[in-house]
Amino acid sequence: MTATAPGLIRRILEYDPAIDTPALIVDETIMHQNIAEMASSAKSMGVNLRPHIKTHKTPEIARLQIAAGAVGIMCAKLGEAEVFAEAGIDDIAIGYQIVGEVKTRRLIKLMDMASVIVSLDSLEAAQALSGAMKRADRVISVYVEVDSGHHRTGVPIGKQTVGFALAIARLPGLRLAGIMTHEGHANAQPPETIREVAVATGEAMVETAELIRRAGVQLETVSVGSTPCAMYTPTVAGVTEMRPGTYVFRDTSAFAYGTYGPDRCAARHLSTVASRPAADRAVLDAGAKTLSLDKSSGHPGQGYIVGHPDVIIDRLSEEHGMVLLPDGEAGFAVGDRVEIIPNHVCPSVNLHDRMRVVRDGVVVDEWRIAARGRAQ
Amino acid sequence: MTATAPGLIRRILEYDPAIDTPALIVDETIMHQNIAEMASSAKSMGVNLRPHIKTHKTPEIARLQIAAGAVGIMCAKLGEAEVFAEAGIDDIAIGYQIVGEVKTRRLIKLMDMASVIVSLDSLEAAQALSGAMKRADRVISVYVEVDSGHHRTGVPIGKQTVGFALAIARLPGLRLAGIMTHEGHANAQPPETIREVAVATGEAMVETAELIRRAGVQLETVSVGSTPCAMYTPTVAGVTEMRPGTYVFRDTSAFAYGTYGPDRCAARHLSTVASRPAADRAVLDAGAKTLSLDKSSGHPGQGYIVGHPDVIIDRLSEEHGMVLLPDGEAGFAVGDRVEIIPNHVCPSVNLHDRMRVVRDGVVVDEWRIAARGRAQ
Repeated sequence: MTATAPGLIRRILEYDPAIDTPALIVDETIMHQNIAEMASSAKSMGVNLRPHIKTHKTPEIARLQIAAGAVGIMCAKLGEAEVFAEAGIDDIAIGYQIVGEVKTRRLIKLMDMASVIVSLDSLEAAQALSGAMKRADRVISVYVEVDSGHHRTGVPIGKQTVGFALAIARLPGLRLAGIMTHEGHANAQPPETIREVAVATGEAMVETAELIRRAGVQLETVSVGSTPCAMYTPTVAGVTEMRPGTYVFRDTSAFAYGTYGPDRCAARHLSTVASRPAADRAVLDAGAKTLSLDKSSGHPGQGYIVGHPDVIIDRLSEEHGMVLLPDGEAGFAVGDRVEIIPNHVCPSVNLHDRMRVVRDGVVVDEWRIAARGRAQ
Repeated sequence: MTATAPGLIRRILEYDPAIDTPALIVDETIMHQNIAEMASSAKSMGVNLRPHIKTHKTPEIARLQIAAGAVGIMCAKLGEAEVFAEAGIDDIAIGYQIVGEVKTRRLIKLMDMASVIVSLDSLEAAQALSGAMKRADRVISVYVEVDSGHHRTGVPIGKQTVGFALAIARLPGLRLAGIMTHEGHANAQPPETIREVAVATGEAMVETAELIRRAGVQLETVSVGSTPCAMYTPTVAGVTEMRPGTYVFRDTSAFAYGTYGPDRCAARHLSTVASRPAADRAVLDAGAKTLSLDKSSGHPGQGYIVGHPDVIIDRLSEEHGMVLLPDGEAGFAVGDRVEIIPNHVCPSVNLHDRMRVVRDGVVVDEWRIAARGRAQ
């Protein structure tokens, strides 16, 4: 499927005055297509798919991903993992360091409900977790988090990762399950070089894993994770798992790479023109509390208005989206409704309590975003 | 009270391992001081205080503000107003255009629970609301929203506002209660000129109100609203109401004006060092999902770390706060806890479900942020 010219994209929801705005709506057909395509892609590359659920935070969608072939899920925080375990998802990785006594107690409870993997990048956290597991007579699976160039968290790739992995393998109560990275530095590349940087990252991860194995330590998983790199990093032989998140909905950041356009963006914010203070200015009832403040390298302004590719959402305050209208732009009368594709769909979903599922232009279901706000 | 040197500010919460992080904590003493000071200031200026509750979204705090002398509250959206009416607050203004049939029906229900004022800036919305009120045999009080220079919503100040106000006064079912503005353009001024711009705005509002009265239309209220301008705009004779919001907690944006420092910031985000990937870099478990992405003119980076004025929160991803540590900075070991004053407290509060109230270093209460996420 290639991108369609932005101007040709139609709204996903027929006008329904019963739906108040701003509201998060999700097109079922596009979402199913995104889920199926990534599952098929993972299969053809021979890697496990472990989708990051931070994008949707909704158990109903995790079940669709697993039904399509995902081996389990990745969560951003322990609090998200708890919600999905309670919803019956039984294979959960947490891409975050577990630090502190309260979190360790919660983790041990979680292990009664699901198979759990946690991430570690410091000896302090590893030793504390090891002690807690020993006292509880439990063993927790661990991914060593590797900094492959994004410079957020993680142990520097190569020798330092090898040393840290060997230390983890020696600690009682911890089982080294694999190494993982988020190749966010590759996402930041221009479209010409993203493949090259992603592949180099995958190769460095596999080399690091080989060094650990040569030191005599078992290591099943080499895990990478990023939607923009999903066609590249997992193609490297030896990478065993991918953890894309955004693909389930996609957003304007995808436009930067040229492969996916608005027709593949499943999640949209339905919004009403609340004010028309000037001929060249309209104000939408969707502000930063609906869309989030994230910028995009794929589209100017604060979101893409479906059907109006040249209309820019210039700035957001909490409850207002200020729209600049080009000369002669039709529409945008007070009361008119638009669909907005957000710049970064994950934080915008986090601002909502529920999403409406749309099929053929009509709302057919309503799902609670059960893990919204679970930052702990 | 003058600002204290930032380095001298102490945390509000004693170390309590039972409180998991990230968590929103509020110092009761500072909050009471902020509430009392603004109430006293409004009294001495002879204006009504109608605090904007978008900052706290919490009925318990609105009750404290009313007990201290506030005449009622201002809400950002109808959904917030519903929450506060259900909590027993009976004088509510909504600073937003009511557009669409669902919202009109909700508004009529709300009018059974509280005295309500809505805002209007377009004839389209006014006529639709008038028709609905007539059919329901009701009369709704209206503030005409005036654009005094912020260029967000509102009718341009002066002649155009007069014409619009007269049109509103003629529409059945609507009662013109006043004119209101948010002097956000004054907030954006440097400290040297904010007073001048705020006072000029207040004078222009009063002149506009006089023109409306001279045309024979009753007008009780001239309402202005902004915490940074709270000492200036309401001093203009003829301004009758002020609607500051942020003052109840304050945030790093206040530092720009020199009057208030971290010691007057009641709301803080308790956060744990989750990772220490390099000597000059620590990662906090508070990211954009905890702090929001807002920038501040009062402090560099993404928030102020109490007790560490030279440590910069350089960037945020959803669950990570990347901290740059100066040479020789002590602390920030994995597991250490810090308190962060957000750049813009209102959107950061909106990301949390509850706040802990701290008295003398100990949590004494927990309040649900009942109107969180009520963007409709």
